[in-house]
Amino acid sequence: MKAAIIFGSKSDTDKMRGAAKCFKEFGVEYEAYVLSAHRVPERLVEVLKDLEERGFEAIVAGAGLAAHLPGVIASKTTLPVIGVPLEAALDGMDALLSIVQMPKSIPVATVGINNSYNGAMVAVQILSVKYPEIKEKLVNFRKEMKENFLRDNGEVVEL
Amino acid sequence: MKAAIIFGSKSDTDKMRGAAKCFKEFGVEYEAYVLSAHRVPERLVEVLKDLEERGFEAIVAGAGLAAHLPGVIASKTTLPVIGVPLEAALDGMDALLSIVQMPKSIPVATVGINNSYNGAMVAVQILSVKYPEIKEKLVNFRKEMKENFLRDNGEVVEL
Amino acid sequence: MKAAIIFGSKSDTDKMRGAAKCFKEFGVEYEAYVLSAHRVPERLVEVLKDLEERGFEAIVAGAGLAAHLPGVIASKTTLPVIGVPLEAALDGMDALLSIVQMPKSIPVATVGINNSYNGAMVAVQILSVKYPEIKEKLVNFRKEMKENFLRDNGEVVEL
Amino acid sequence: MKAAIIFGSKSDTDKMRGAAKCFKEFGVEYEAYVLSAHRVPERLVEVLKDLEERGFEAIVAGAGLAAHLPGVIASKTTLPVIGVPLEAALDGMDALLSIVQMPKSIPVATVGINNSYNGAMVAVQILSVKYPEIKEKLVNFRKEMKENFLRDNGEVVEL
Amino acid sequence: MKAAIIFGSKSDTDKMRGAAKCFKEFGVEYEAYVLSAHRVPERLVEVLKDLEERGFEAIVAGAGLAAHLPGVIASKTTLPVIGVPLEAALDGMDALLSIVQMPKSIPVATVGINNSYNGAMVAVQILSVKYPEIKEKLVNFRKEMKENFLRDNGEVVEL
Amino acid sequence: MKAAIIFGSKSDTDKMRGAAKCFKEFGVEYEAYVLSAHRVPERLVEVLKDLEERGFEAIVAGAGLAAHLPGVIASKTTLPVIGVPLEAALDGMDALLSIVQMPKSIPVATVGINNSYNGAMVAVQILSVKYPEIKEKLVNFRKEMKENFLRDNGEVVEL
Amino acid sequence: MKAAIIFGSKSDTDKMRGAAKCFKEFGVEYEAYVLSAHRVPERLVEVLKDLEERGFEAIVAGAGLAAHLPGVIASKTTLPVIGVPLEAALDGMDALLSIVQMPKSIPVATVGINNSYNGAMVAVQILSVKYPEIKEKLVNFRKEMKENFLRDNGEVVEL
Amino acid sequence: MKAAIIFGSKSDTDKMRGAAKCFKEFGVEYEAYVLSAHRVPERLVEVLKDLEERGFEAIVAGAGLAAHLPGVIASKTTLPVIGVPLEAALDGMDALLSIVQMPKSIPVATVGINNSYNGAMVAVQILSVKYPEIKEKLVNFRKEMKENFLRDNGEVVEL
Repeated sequence: MKAAIIFGSKSDTDKMRGAAKCFKEFGVEYEAYVLSAHRVPERLVEVLKDLEERGFEAIVAGAGLAAHLPGVIASKTTLPVIGVPLEAALDGMDALLSIVQMPKSIPVATVGINNSYNGAMVAVQILSVKYPEIKEKLVNFRKEMKENFLRDNGEVVEL
Repeated sequence: MKAAIIFGSKSDTDKMRGAAKCFKEFGVEYEAYVLSAHRVPERLVEVLKDLEERGFEAIVAGAGLAAHLPGVIASKTTLPVIGVPLEAALDGMDALLSIVQMPKSIPVATVGINNSYNGAMVAVQILSVKYPEIKEKLVNFRKEMKENFLRDNGEVVEL
Repeated sequence: MKAAIIFGSKSDTDKMRGAAKCFKEFGVEYEAYVLSAHRVPERLVEVLKDLEERGFEAIVAGAGLAAHLPGVIASKTTLPVIGVPLEAALDGMDALLSIVQMPKSIPVATVGINNSYNGAMVAVQILSVKYPEIKEKLVNFRKEMKENFLRDNGEVVEL
Repeated sequence: MKAAIIFGSKSDTDKMRGAAKCFKEFGVEYEAYVLSAHRVPERLVEVLKDLEERGFEAIVAGAGLAAHLPGVIASKTTLPVIGVPLEAALDGMDALLSIVQMPKSIPVATVGINNSYNGAMVAVQILSVKYPEIKEKLVNFRKEMKENFLRDNGEVVEL
Repeated sequence: MKAAIIFGSKSDTDKMRGAAKCFKEFGVEYEAYVLSAHRVPERLVEVLKDLEERGFEAIVAGAGLAAHLPGVIASKTTLPVIGVPLEAALDGMDALLSIVQMPKSIPVATVGINNSYNGAMVAVQILSVKYPEIKEKLVNFRKEMKENFLRDNGEVVEL
Repeated sequence: MKAAIIFGSKSDTDKMRGAAKCFKEFGVEYEAYVLSAHRVPERLVEVLKDLEERGFEAIVAGAGLAAHLPGVIASKTTLPVIGVPLEAALDGMDALLSIVQMPKSIPVATVGINNSYNGAMVAVQILSVKYPEIKEKLVNFRKEMKENFLRDNGEVVEL
Repeated sequence: MKAAIIFGSKSDTDKMRGAAKCFKEFGVEYEAYVLSAHRVPERLVEVLKDLEERGFEAIVAGAGLAAHLPGVIASKTTLPVIGVPLEAALDGMDALLSIVQMPKSIPVATVGINNSYNGAMVAVQILSVKYPEIKEKLVNFRKEMKENFLRDNGEVVEL
Repeated sequence: MKAAIIFGSKSDTDKMRGAAKCFKEFGVEYEAYVLSAHRVPERLVEVLKDLEERGFEAIVAGAGLAAHLPGVIASKTTLPVIGVPLEAALDGMDALLSIVQMPKSIPVATVGINNSYNGAMVAVQILSVKYPEIKEKLVNFRKEMKENFLRDNGEVVEL
């Protein structure tokens, strides 16, 4: 039960930490790679092949601008690919459209702009379909999220 | 191995047929529901609870305008929810943003505008993580897709 | 004569203070709640039911991103719901469209981005239809607003 | 218990019929006016004054392009003004922003693009705060809406 | 030969200084007013009437958000009205569309976002049609602008 | 008292007829030219020079896409230039931004998308500053516009 | 002196004919391929390698939606790649941003939406830098374009 | 083998340094000019004519707002013109559309917003078609870019 995190540039490291945080919370083993679809396309293909063979089961891919990375990954693997649009220009609208508008048959499951935590959460949900222990953690996570929310947000707040 | 298709209005039936087509191609059993998050929220909750208990493993949800359906479903289940923005105004941009920009912890895996086929394809990829027979079909689908593409698109086309 | 203010996250508290300010100016009793449509949907339903029974007559709801809160509230109550789009990404355009583009029969009365003061002002106008004392205050408010404006902005300004 | 419908051009008549339809369904007496904020501003002021004196309690105003009508009305009355952005260019985005982004203290309660039915529905909700018979009709409307929806949309649809 | 500058809020004073600067450069007498179309509509009408009678010949009007001021002025005078969209939200796109998309017969001559200098320049060009001394200044201004530009920007710049 | 209409392509003829219609209504002599800023820049310069010498006093320029024509004209003349964005792609947003966002000192007075009638109306307003007979016609036009509007739009319309 | 035209789907054939038309006009030998970056990425790499070896000197690539094709080609060749955004949704804005916003070092030279003729024209200009006969044709083309434009567009047009 | 860099205002100098940096890396001789299409159109024409005669072979042109400079240059030369949209308002969307949406036959090869480095890189690719030494440098650049990328981005990154 392993997931991969891939993003195109070291400068996006901070924006992608949310994905690692989520995987840690759920005890999902992960590896993170900086791999550019445009700069090292051959290396990307090698790593993807390797990931499949080594038993990785979902890939979270973050990219900005003309954010081709998630789509290029999706074209080279049958693993579920979750795309995280990263804001670098135009409030991230360029990255969102470059990721979500994939053609028929080669989808990228897209989450909100800069929301890498949610990218990993989709991966966790995917893994939970197969692994009962993840499902259990997910159910507990939701339960605790509710309890924490209700505890932190009293009946009536001062405004 | 069952998936659900839910959309908010009978008028969206044609736009959602692509999801059914995809599930049929992969032999994934599915049920389709018209259920509005705003008109029948209680019934939606009932059906969702029922789906989990009956062993459904992924939900494809399509909606237009202020497309809350996929997000509301995501808040009531831990199953992976795939959102399909349907075009009803503003070229579908309203639906896309209403679906993809979900807050931390409750993601909706979003695909392209009107692209319900891809919505189901994400579900197929999710199921393929667990079910080897779906994985095999997916690998074959990609192989055939390539072969068909190359057969249909000769070396040099007349233009 | 009571109104409720509901918003989805403590981090939006500052943006929602304008609503409280407006209610105070008009002497409208109000209660404020932090309640997320996605994190604690069941608690939201309970609170809404309670509000109706306790005589609240309008609800101002603020949310950002895929801002479902006002629409989800509108689906669970027949009270007028005023939506305030809060800016968290894309200059608040995502929240605006997620709130204003509600489907037929379940409207949300939407005000400008981050303009929670105006959200409460719509509630005040709604209450003024029923309560002559609010109507009187509203008429006076407008009169004073004009007088203040004219007093503060001399005939010809230096530029 | 009377409401007014005002729009800026005869060419918008069809887009505004939804408002009349809604008022008829709820038995709300209404009058409809074609009055342009830019062409006959003085006449608009006269009519508005008259409406207040004759006991009208809410105004639904529809406009397209640089849709100033709802805001100009709001500046001349303390009645609640509901704005309906009508599509004439740019998919109606110009009208939406011209209506919803009103400055502090003079709000327009805005509904979705071309959604004049919802504009009247907000007015109905406003009236329901004061008039128990409208409240009752509104509660019944929602109940019937749910029943009709569930009757029309069987458990599982063919797709 | 007099021009007026009108804007809706003291908070826009800095953004409108460019208009005053331009009028000073061309020796055009001007008066500046802070007048809100929504807060003091009656006073606005009075001032406009007064301006026409006192011989003002063009009006530069700046506004932000749902920027109705220039259009409302245009509906109350036959003087040329130049609109300056001011940025307060959405990068000023709301103000631009609210000003430029005026209906048939009541135009507002619109310039770029926050570009109040250009607003006054349009007024200068309008006055130059009538007043040869302004025309001469305008021709000289262009000539000097070119000379200054060429003087300041040497043949080849270091980069 | 003459005005020019210039547009970049014969295919825009229909969209520009509104300008001619307006000039005819006001008895303003005009000449219309098809001249492309990109295809025949030298000829454009010649015609512009000629227009100034022959006593033309305002120029209405329409263009679509990367609509440089009005701005290029503005850079070559000190006459007031009114720009009409014509829709050819992206709902005309490309043309609007290419025309209105001119740099400091070289403005184009911009009107609404496809609204060539309003383009000529701005020219009429400009001429009215100088020519009392145009001013008189303009005042009458507004008066008749109001009368016609009120005559055509009865007190209460059927809806 | 050969150029390649590549596009991702047979359904885009009509939109890409402009490129072929332009190459024919300039006597540039070309070959056209339908090759999808997502469906047949390996075949795309083979063809690109082959094109370089066979002496092709520029590539015009058209794609719609999340239009990765031009960028993926650019990452696999050092030949100049010209991208043509094709409209399939959102007026082509998704394709434009997916093509033009390429990261540092791997540019795609982008032309207007659906403007495949201009895509080939950029290639012609590139070839004209090397081949004097193309340069001569280009100079003549411009000369004839001007002559034709002036012949077709008489001094003053009827409007 | 020389290229020119032209931009419209000294204030854009920093945004255009990337172009100079790229030309230096590839040993391409260049000259940089500040020349405004709107302020000094005649001087621009002179410089362009001079550049062609002095053997320049590509032009990188950067501009913001209603960014006409690249298109105006393209209309006066048959050299390849590469346009760099510079952000001055609206996140640079105005400049992007003003540059990329050029009409048939007069293209501007457009790169990403503020990405002047890529503007020069397109010029380098153009020159590489003619000059084997540039081609060789380009091939080496890509090779080194890959090596550097792989060296800097280890197999698995800490996240």
